[in-house]
Amino acid sequence: MKLPTDPADNLAALIRCPSVTPAEGGALTALEAMLAPLGFAVERPVFSQDATADVENLYARRSAEGPHLMFAGHTDVVPVGDEKAWTHPPFAAEIANGVMYGRGAVDMKGGIACFVAALARHVEATGGPKGSVSLLITGDEEGPAVNGSVKLLEWATARGERWDACLLGEPTNPDRLGDMIKVGRRGSLSGAVTVLGRQGHVAYPHLADNPMRGLMTLLDALHGPPFDAGTERFQPTNLEVTSVDVGNTAANVIPARATAAFNVRFNDTWSAESLQAEIHNRLDAASRRRKYRKGRTEPVEFELSWRESPSHVFLTHDEKLVGTLSRSVEAVTGVRPALSTSGGTSDARFIKDYCPVVEFGLVGRTMHMVDERVALTDLEMLTEIYRRFIGNWFGEQ
Amino acid sequence: MKLPTDPADNLAALIRCPSVTPAEGGALTALEAMLAPLGFAVERPVFSQDATADVENLYARRSAEGPHLMFAGHTDVVPVGDEKAWTHPPFAAEIANGVMYGRGAVDMKGGIACFVAALARHVEATGGPKGSVSLLITGDEEGPAVNGSVKLLEWATARGERWDACLLGEPTNPDRLGDMIKVGRRGSLSGAVTVLGRQGHVAYPHLADNPMRGLMTLLDALHGPPFDAGTERFQPTNLEVTSVDVGNTAANVIPARATAAFNVRFNDTWSAESLQAEIHNRLDAASRRRKYRKGRTEPVEFELSWRESPSHVFLTHDEKLVGTLSRSVEAVTGVRPALSTSGGTSDARFIKDYCPVVEFGLVGRTMHMVDERVALTDLEMLTEIYRRFIGNWFGEQ
Repeated sequence: MKLPTDPADNLAALIRCPSVTPAEGGALTALEAMLAPLGFAVERPVFSQDATADVENLYARRSAEGPHLMFAGHTDVVPVGDEKAWTHPPFAAEIANGVMYGRGAVDMKGGIACFVAALARHVEATGGPKGSVSLLITGDEEGPAVNGSVKLLEWATARGERWDACLLGEPTNPDRLGDMIKVGRRGSLSGAVTVLGRQGHVAYPHLADNPMRGLMTLLDALHGPPFDAGTERFQPTNLEVTSVDVGNTAANVIPARATAAFNVRFNDTWSAESLQAEIHNRLDAASRRRKYRKGRTEPVEFELSWRESPSHVFLTHDEKLVGTLSRSVEAVTGVRPALSTSGGTSDARFIKDYCPVVEFGLVGRTMHMVDERVALTDLEMLTEIYRRFIGNWFGEQ
Repeated sequence: MKLPTDPADNLAALIRCPSVTPAEGGALTALEAMLAPLGFAVERPVFSQDATADVENLYARRSAEGPHLMFAGHTDVVPVGDEKAWTHPPFAAEIANGVMYGRGAVDMKGGIACFVAALARHVEATGGPKGSVSLLITGDEEGPAVNGSVKLLEWATARGERWDACLLGEPTNPDRLGDMIKVGRRGSLSGAVTVLGRQGHVAYPHLADNPMRGLMTLLDALHGPPFDAGTERFQPTNLEVTSVDVGNTAANVIPARATAAFNVRFNDTWSAESLQAEIHNRLDAASRRRKYRKGRTEPVEFELSWRESPSHVFLTHDEKLVGTLSRSVEAVTGVRPALSTSGGTSDARFIKDYCPVVEFGLVGRTMHMVDERVALTDLEMLTEIYRRFIGNWFGEQ
């Protein structure tokens, strides 16, 4: 039986499945067809929740022995955007000048294609690792992420699955394959502050209290001073005001309230809780400093609320996992990868509660864009990196 | 024939007409019935414009001789709001403890009722003024003000009407009858400033440019320093930010643009044009001072637009008009009224292009509120003030 040792073939098969979240699009079926000849037992649980679409996921395990390495990823992709702007059709996997085009090429059908090819080569050469490899693949990473990794991890754990380490195949390299391994992620905290003023006519400002003045005072306090200067493995904590909304269309009316939404990406100086307290303290202090109506001081009245639950900051300390991956990258690319915690959140924030997790994949530059694409040489190099990593992590090379 | 010498009777008849803009509600018919026995020729032109309701107005003139005094006002009223919250029905003109309740009691069916009563008393006592009195009454002051005073003034002027002076009967007294004559109005200028940033992911702020930071810099420059310290007859120029809108609901996205709307009430230090130039200069200067990405200076990119046409500032210098009115107020109330230019705009801003205009009416405290009401003693005093003013302005007393 022919094993799926060619990452380009694997990727072409996956790209041709239009698996825009929440559609399975044939992608999990295509993946299952690659895994079966490698000896995987494949399950495809579907998860549901009110007000969200049902989503199909995949969990496959090869062998029942320890140690147990998980490879995690997703086959769903973001929409194609302006399809006419693509120079090659987004679900055709056309190759031009050594580059394959298609939605998901790097984010992250490419990562899955390379891992499967790496394992296939390892099986072909050695009969496969002494231990278990599993794939935890969700169809709901780009969408609401409700019926995806969180439930899949709970589902597998309830069935007795335990892992020693996880490699997540998201595109981690900013510019060149080998640039960057992600060994942690900043936390993320979203909130909103509403200033309550007093509505009135613009011609009589002394009878009103414009909430925009108070809000600007509070936002100044959120914008500075810096929360911290960064830590050994993390960038400085950063706050962005993501929206301000008043919604007053009457040019002669001073509005009653003004709301600003903000998001903070925070490092290991903070827990979500200590950061919430810091933000509350800053707003309180700024509120009390407000000068109101020439000379008189009157606190800005405000309400602070938090959106959903925060993502917690984490850093993976597993020397075997990080070191093996780092040396595999360097051996293939000649570049020692940066161990970074930069960028947005990923499903690693869920996996970290089950086992140590690191992330390494393709170059992310074209992800989510028109003409998402990957060089065939990058597919080949990533496959070799993964093959070395599998061998070394299981201690066979 | 009985003349309409009782302001409370006149006002009750007007309040009972539910003339919420743009409805005539019977109010102009009631007014016409009062004016006919006083020898007025009454016209009721209806004006139309696309996308607005047709509105009926009234123009009445008594005599064809000079000099010519105009009394201006409106019979339309604002909606009643929460009708159940009224202690007396809003269109019933009920009297309790010497106070008449009803929508329009002070704004400004009361002013019209008193002027008609004043003129009726004058006619009864002397046969009427030696000269012309006209009433220019719109039904579109509280609404879009499109099919009201502006068109009525043009319509009358096209028919050859010319006026020597105008008394506008809007409620001008903040607390007590006699407090305040309005002898001018500040100008009003509305605009919007949009800052163009660069959209991006909150996790990668260095790849984006958050427009809220730039907008806060620009708004700070609009908020201070003061535009001026006020002038002899005018309050300081004041700017209020009336809305800020971004409309971004994604907590992980730095938005591409942010817009702030503002309104300025300005005094005779400025013309609308010089103030627009000042605002543009402030924004330009603040834009260039912006520090962007640690140390580097890069201008904030912004767009400035002006809403509709501005209201121009004006001050009435007519000594006969202002002096006669002021002395009439003082003779009846014992209070020398302040000559003020405070507050919002009024139809005086249109009338001032045709003849000198002053404003004096009832106490405005309950205007636009639930339980709008007027003391019967105020109606009687205002009638006496108007009667003296008519006599003195025509030089007969």
